[in-house]
Amino acid sequence: MTGSQTNDEADALAANEAFYRAFSSGDLRLMSKLWAHLAAVTCLHPGMAELTGRDAVMRSFAAILSQPPSESLNCISPRVRILGKVAVVTCYEAAGNGPAHLAATNVFVLENREWKMVHHHAGPLERPVAVRSNGSMLN
Amino acid sequence: MTGSQTNDEADALAANEAFYRAFSSGDLRLMSKLWAHLAAVTCLHPGMAELTGRDAVMRSFAAILSQPPSESLNCISPRVRILGKVAVVTCYEAAGNGPAHLAATNVFVLENREWKMVHHHAGPLERPVAVRSNGSMLN
Repeated sequence: MTGSQTNDEADALAANEAFYRAFSSGDLRLMSKLWAHLAAVTCLHPGMAELTGRDAVMRSFAAILSQPPSESLNCISPRVRILGKVAVVTCYEAAGNGPAHLAATNVFVLENREWKMVHHHAGPLERPVAVRSNGSMLN
Repeated sequence: MTGSQTNDEADALAANEAFYRAFSSGDLRLMSKLWAHLAAVTCLHPGMAELTGRDAVMRSFAAILSQPPSESLNCISPRVRILGKVAVVTCYEAAGNGPAHLAATNVFVLENREWKMVHHHAGPLERPVAVRSNGSMLN
């Protein structure tokens, strides 16, 4: 992102980064804190049917994070749009230093002045995309 | 959806349905009308890298719709959330009467009192999901 980010954009991107940090470190407590408590939440894990409601989404992360990945799940080239009290972040996801193998849509809403996740959708890329050492895409 | 829908929910779902109608009928003019003119737009076609900006997104639909599918692309079990001036719709996508083979996230924003698409993300399901004749999922 450029230096012309607004505070909302920077804060939404920080929430998005925290999601990947929670995922990579197996931190269920942080993951739970990141998701909305008031708004309805949904989650589309790669290739899977939709999970609806905080209980179902948190159960899925409890199962996933009970076996943290050997490599971190990195967010590559995030792009944020602020639409009122909603932030839509799109990015690619890569395991460790590997090529990006997933594309993600993450939607956040302002709750008590904090950006909270209301929807995560990650889906496989047909062809993994190489990533530069600075985190940007090669094409 | 239930009979307790708000007008915003019904209108956003109608915009979502129009997207699939435009797709299925190869109607590029309707497709163009459905996408936002003011807000930034992005699109993640299944397995593909992200398209950003109205020109790139419309070019992709011009190419896709120049060869309309032999079967309609149907929206199954849509779920809508209104978050201020943003509507987030999730659904499954099925070709004709086939099982749902994609999961989608469609984000709309109010522009001049009409719900306009700002983001479409469709990704493959690991296992296609059968659909009842009334359009609901079998599981």
